[in-house]
Amino acid sequence: MSAYDPSNIFAKILRGEIPCTRVYEDDAALAFMDIMPRTDGHVLVIPKVAARGILDMPPEALGPYMQAVQKVAAGVKAGMNAEGLTLQQFNETAGGQVVFHLHFHILPRWEGVAVRPHSGAMEKPELLEGHAKKIRAALGV
Amino acid sequence: MSAYDPSNIFAKILRGEIPCTRVYEDDAALAFMDIMPRTDGHVLVIPKVAARGILDMPPEALGPYMQAVQKVAAGVKAGMNAEGLTLQQFNETAGGQVVFHLHFHILPRWEGVAVRPHSGAMEKPELLEGHAKKIRAALGV
Repeated sequence: MSAYDPSNIFAKILRGEIPCTRVYEDDAALAFMDIMPRTDGHVLVIPKVAARGILDMPPEALGPYMQAVQKVAAGVKAGMNAEGLTLQQFNETAGGQVVFHLHFHILPRWEGVAVRPHSGAMEKPELLEGHAKKIRAALGV
Repeated sequence: MSAYDPSNIFAKILRGEIPCTRVYEDDAALAFMDIMPRTDGHVLVIPKVAARGILDMPPEALGPYMQAVQKVAAGVKAGMNAEGLTLQQFNETAGGQVVFHLHFHILPRWEGVAVRPHSGAMEKPELLEGHAKKIRAALGV
């Protein structure tokens, strides 16, 4: 396991140093739109605990964090009118991780609609905000 | 949300009606080798609760289940001498789900080694048992 680097971009989002398109927040977690969505409505959920990956989470913090993941997943499914959900969580570069603060990807899915490849292109903020609005409405926040 | 069908194959594994190559078990979860591994050492972790997908888990059952997922993930990484881990969790057919009992995929990863496409072919039992042995040793079970 490698050390936690507090200069990662999700730590900066948690500290309010850089903005995000927020959909949910509680004592354990923050959820916001992925700026390079692989499907429409792609959301990330991060714990407030400074954990690099799943192995670094204090076991007692997993429950509250995963309850937030579950709640947000339900909001994403309802708000985006999705038929399914794909959850992904990457650890270390070999495992697909790019930002070294634990995060779950929540991808709303529809029959016949593939997950888009990584494009490296940032989505238009107004489109992200439109999806966030639907998800927040479904979450009642 | 659709109903839970107790005739799914993971429910049968939990009831001991069909075999599995087990790597871990506690009060909350059972972990066993995926018979169609997408990487060597591909393990599935299922809750003992009868939940179809992540949205169907009683929130209070998420903590103990995810603690088992974390523990098994650590064992997979150490036992398989992996450089990273990819976790996946699929919900409904549109989300990639095939067996309708909640499960997390734990894929050990190495730099330059891609996840294999779905082949539909079953892995040799002796190869699965060889990987399971290493993972069990890392878990101390």
